[in-house]
Amino acid sequence: MNTTQATINVGIIGANGYGGVELIRILAQHPYVNIALLISRSEAGKRLADVFPHFYGSDIGERIYISPYDADWSALEVCFFATPHTVAMSQAQFLLDRGIKVIDLSADFRLQDRLTWEQWYATRHTAPELIAQAVYGLPELNRQSIKGAQLIACPGCYPTATQLGLMPLLQQQLLTNDSIIVDAKSGVSGAGRSAKTAMLFAERAENFEAYATAGHRHYPEIKQQLEMMQGSEVNLIFTPHLLPAVRGIHATIYAKLKNVDTDVQALFEQTYQDEPFVSVLPPKSHPQTQSVAMTNQVQIAVARPPHSDYVTILVVEDNLIKGAGGQAVQCMNVMLGWQETLGLRQLASV
Amino acid sequence: MNTTQATINVGIIGANGYGGVELIRILAQHPYVNIALLISRSEAGKRLADVFPHFYGSDIGERIYISPYDADWSALEVCFFATPHTVAMSQAQFLLDRGIKVIDLSADFRLQDRLTWEQWYATRHTAPELIAQAVYGLPELNRQSIKGAQLIACPGCYPTATQLGLMPLLQQQLLTNDSIIVDAKSGVSGAGRSAKTAMLFAERAENFEAYATAGHRHYPEIKQQLEMMQGSEVNLIFTPHLLPAVRGIHATIYAKLKNVDTDVQALFEQTYQDEPFVSVLPPKSHPQTQSVAMTNQVQIAVARPPHSDYVTILVVEDNLIKGAGGQAVQCMNVMLGWQETLGLRQLASV
Amino acid sequence: MNTTQATINVGIIGANGYGGVELIRILAQHPYVNIALLISRSEAGKRLADVFPHFYGSDIGERIYISPYDADWSALEVCFFATPHTVAMSQAQFLLDRGIKVIDLSADFRLQDRLTWEQWYATRHTAPELIAQAVYGLPELNRQSIKGAQLIACPGCYPTATQLGLMPLLQQQLLTNDSIIVDAKSGVSGAGRSAKTAMLFAERAENFEAYATAGHRHYPEIKQQLEMMQGSEVNLIFTPHLLPAVRGIHATIYAKLKNVDTDVQALFEQTYQDEPFVSVLPPKSHPQTQSVAMTNQVQIAVARPPHSDYVTILVVEDNLIKGAGGQAVQCMNVMLGWQETLGLRQLASV
Amino acid sequence: MNTTQATINVGIIGANGYGGVELIRILAQHPYVNIALLISRSEAGKRLADVFPHFYGSDIGERIYISPYDADWSALEVCFFATPHTVAMSQAQFLLDRGIKVIDLSADFRLQDRLTWEQWYATRHTAPELIAQAVYGLPELNRQSIKGAQLIACPGCYPTATQLGLMPLLQQQLLTNDSIIVDAKSGVSGAGRSAKTAMLFAERAENFEAYATAGHRHYPEIKQQLEMMQGSEVNLIFTPHLLPAVRGIHATIYAKLKNVDTDVQALFEQTYQDEPFVSVLPPKSHPQTQSVAMTNQVQIAVARPPHSDYVTILVVEDNLIKGAGGQAVQCMNVMLGWQETLGLRQLASV
Repeated sequence: MNTTQATINVGIIGANGYGGVELIRILAQHPYVNIALLISRSEAGKRLADVFPHFYGSDIGERIYISPYDADWSALEVCFFATPHTVAMSQAQFLLDRGIKVIDLSADFRLQDRLTWEQWYATRHTAPELIAQAVYGLPELNRQSIKGAQLIACPGCYPTATQLGLMPLLQQQLLTNDSIIVDAKSGVSGAGRSAKTAMLFAERAENFEAYATAGHRHYPEIKQQLEMMQGSEVNLIFTPHLLPAVRGIHATIYAKLKNVDTDVQALFEQTYQDEPFVSVLPPKSHPQTQSVAMTNQVQIAVARPPHSDYVTILVVEDNLIKGAGGQAVQCMNVMLGWQETLGLRQLASV
Repeated sequence: MNTTQATINVGIIGANGYGGVELIRILAQHPYVNIALLISRSEAGKRLADVFPHFYGSDIGERIYISPYDADWSALEVCFFATPHTVAMSQAQFLLDRGIKVIDLSADFRLQDRLTWEQWYATRHTAPELIAQAVYGLPELNRQSIKGAQLIACPGCYPTATQLGLMPLLQQQLLTNDSIIVDAKSGVSGAGRSAKTAMLFAERAENFEAYATAGHRHYPEIKQQLEMMQGSEVNLIFTPHLLPAVRGIHATIYAKLKNVDTDVQALFEQTYQDEPFVSVLPPKSHPQTQSVAMTNQVQIAVARPPHSDYVTILVVEDNLIKGAGGQAVQCMNVMLGWQETLGLRQLASV
Repeated sequence: MNTTQATINVGIIGANGYGGVELIRILAQHPYVNIALLISRSEAGKRLADVFPHFYGSDIGERIYISPYDADWSALEVCFFATPHTVAMSQAQFLLDRGIKVIDLSADFRLQDRLTWEQWYATRHTAPELIAQAVYGLPELNRQSIKGAQLIACPGCYPTATQLGLMPLLQQQLLTNDSIIVDAKSGVSGAGRSAKTAMLFAERAENFEAYATAGHRHYPEIKQQLEMMQGSEVNLIFTPHLLPAVRGIHATIYAKLKNVDTDVQALFEQTYQDEPFVSVLPPKSHPQTQSVAMTNQVQIAVARPPHSDYVTILVVEDNLIKGAGGQAVQCMNVMLGWQETLGLRQLASV
Repeated sequence: MNTTQATINVGIIGANGYGGVELIRILAQHPYVNIALLISRSEAGKRLADVFPHFYGSDIGERIYISPYDADWSALEVCFFATPHTVAMSQAQFLLDRGIKVIDLSADFRLQDRLTWEQWYATRHTAPELIAQAVYGLPELNRQSIKGAQLIACPGCYPTATQLGLMPLLQQQLLTNDSIIVDAKSGVSGAGRSAKTAMLFAERAENFEAYATAGHRHYPEIKQQLEMMQGSEVNLIFTPHLLPAVRGIHATIYAKLKNVDTDVQALFEQTYQDEPFVSVLPPKSHPQTQSVAMTNQVQIAVARPPHSDYVTILVVEDNLIKGAGGQAVQCMNVMLGWQETLGLRQLASV
């Protein structure tokens, strides 16, 4: 650790949801960061530990949420949005104007086509001029661009797993133009912390179902990114499902190879050999969501179904870490020229 | 209820596993059945309630397991095998010779090609002459043949869900010969009741993974059946996964339509309109495993992924009921000319 | 079954909650009952299966909820209230006046002291004249009074488990007046089906906590009943906890014996020997909530902690069945002079 | 961090169980520790990541298990036993003779009375001379003795929670000699990682039960410690239960006050005000096992049941961290004069 590195001040806007609280947890343990502002309108005036009792006994637990109207933004170097969509697009410019780097965990700047965004989110985009300026925050794809960025659009859980599972194949144009099928399963924390009957314990325990088969908001984002990787149109079928588990994404991806002799295992190992957060497992492995829970790691295995020209790619990640707060911190580390793994080296438990 | 129906005597061989115990539970509540023999070598001499304490307080709980060597088979009309593979094939002929109908929940007679069976089960088949005689026990496919059968090979969990999810399309030859992808998720009771570290609560809770991507024993059975339905070769990719749940199968099936204008919803509704145990849900539904838990019901929904010529079929069943003991009782009802739903009308809970 | 028994018409008011839906499920399978009215203001006009998709494929699933204002009450013989408190007390007299027997699953008539009720429920009791008329619906305690009753106040989950766990000792005055400690654990379905953040899957999975240590509404009900059994004051400490499970109550009860030589095992076996829904397990048993899930059964074991004059009583029940809908149906069977177990003989699964 | 601190070499013997693997995980992230030896007879020769795939992608995952017969012990300063009982007592002297500090996570040196140990563990104690030398490794009780110790007997999950929940009251002799009732609930990881049918997911999910009501091995340990705190005999009733959760201990403790006016809240706050790993929650709180999962924290709340002279103490901890590996590392930090919280500052997640 570079002991001469000065600590920087960061702000977090939002942070009542599961992803946002994980972001607080990670940043509170980051060696170079001071959480200077904890912004929430609904919780303003409360101690963090009173809202989230698992923070009792820690320094961060004593911090007080403040209202955005009472905030002194002047000391910030970086500000995170862990808010529902439409918040970041209305406030990012204010922060950027003050020289504050912005890392948005929401969807506001992920789609490059404004009309597509407006169609899927059913509202007008109020900061279209920032869309082109925003850098898509997937370091394994985009590390160089992130380095110089002022505004990061962090991809969420499904897009991260899907892109990392397909990037090696798409960038080399190794797939036919048959439909790529992404059968994805998510822990229920992905549905957020607001009270909904469908997300009650009694509804989800011992239960499993698909959802949004008619179209999920991550569909256009995934499609945009896969097409960018391949340089041409991608036919995508994306089916998300809800696991009876709190955390974890498991994407099972089916893609058809142009050439059945492609050594997919070697390709994946080579592509990710220097990536600190992506592990390619040995042949015949089956990655488990438990193996990456509470970490920023992604584990990938590739399989070749018998008698088939398809490849099956199995990808796991923690939807709240690599799919949210961990990825945001990874982006911050890259933006600031720090060691990319700072604050993100947690190990999982059995 | 036909109050003049005499009760028949049935025997159950095996029944220490999850599927077998469910069979006991269902038969104990069947209005026309007396469980005359409860056969187990390992538990011989014990009361059922002492082995499975949830039977305390019920009549069946007082029944004693007996050894096969002490059994008086003479009074039986029907005998169920809820045993690991290779048991039924060694004992079925003995029972058939005594005029006892045999319903086998194991895999011994499911594959029509003996060599394929021997390859996947890695042992010699000792009753090959019975293979042709055995009727595949999926009433929705095979009701007429089951009626006159003496020996039933009951399909298990994955094959039942997959066949019911594809039968309407295959029988009408509506699919292209592109690969059919079956992404299936099972509750862990499907792995049985023998002690394995990988099935411990601490290994499976908050966890999800694929398994057997290199080949699962249900693969040749499913392929055989789909090809029989279609009358030609089927390219099949089958990926099973383990859910952090006790019960339930959810199959997500991706198949490519020859004609994108096919009204798949109407086809499914029509095919299953008279089936007591198969419900086709309204368009845009997402069947839940919880909705069929503890019942013999199957729920199916069909979806059309946007911008695609694929159909996505979602199928749920209880792996221990429609995927095991319930299906066996359904077959018995059909074999004996009884009302098919006798003893199988349980409703699920939220 | 007495095949000459005519079916009676029953109505269910409420029934959007977990207990109410279980009541529907049980009544739908009761051989002598026709559910003539399914009353709900919020769901009026909808099919039951559209609100609760697990009813698809069953006859009851096709039934339509109607508003209380559109109901024709004239054909009813029995009406159940599966409503929040205060509903039954405002409508029971209307039904009783029409000769309809009322079974209330809510708390409105459980406390004999009106002021205590008003204090704990923080509202005025609007039908105090019915309190004395209501019979407490615990058949194991009160069978004779239930037989002639017109209005039943059904006890809920914690009171049922606690009373059955202590009745044999209290009725014989075998305990000292030291505090009886009831450490009770409940599945989260006990918290109901309304959307609350604290009951989300992500909050409850892998989690356990006590609640209401400062006072729970079941405290005065339990105390009233225990004192009635013993004929004198009872010191009670009651601590409820939330299990990461959907169903089940486990009460661990600690009580001090006047005489350490009391044969508690024999006392319990004798007390409950003829009870169809209470099983006293052999010495050294540990009843499991899973063993009674989905059934109306209670399992009890008694233990003697080493070096102590205490007895530990372990009681399990399904909070939604014996602790709600099942108990209500048991009361109905008794009221109408039917076999007490009608419609309630479901067996549990492993 | 003191950057001039040299790293020390530690060895871990055992470490195939859940507690042991957590110890590896914690030590791998400890700033002053190098895991020099990873000892296992059964796994010798394998990479850690091949046995526990959640370590893929980390440096520690590449480490190789070696057999004790091939180990070079000379470089070790500290050695941990994460083994079943009887292993440490047979090997500790060998290590102590070489100047290696020993921290035993097993039960071998926890009971000061050898005969009691031999009775409860049903085998002869082979190193009785080490019993007196061993220091009981609960820093909150014993910090000074741990500082100079060579051999530590680390308390496990139930004893840690119980002692911390009662220490303030017992040390001040504030309780009557009525029985103290400890109703404890544990996640199933406490039962270990060996394959047992009773610990299968399908047996434990949606299930809850008491166990060992006739006597648990932690009973004499807890009793010994409580009596030492109070300086006189303690009547103890201890009932453990199994939660359908992987991790967590929740102890609900009922104790009778000599003086009902004792300010228990203030006493607890005062006792633990400087303890880094014990948080006393505000009045009316209910600590949750989730709040301390994956951390070395203990959270305690005290409640006063209405109309009673009892106090109810609620204690939560992670059974695998503060109840096992975390406590061992805390002891090591104290033994070596390091900051007590080194490597133990993980925060929990919602």
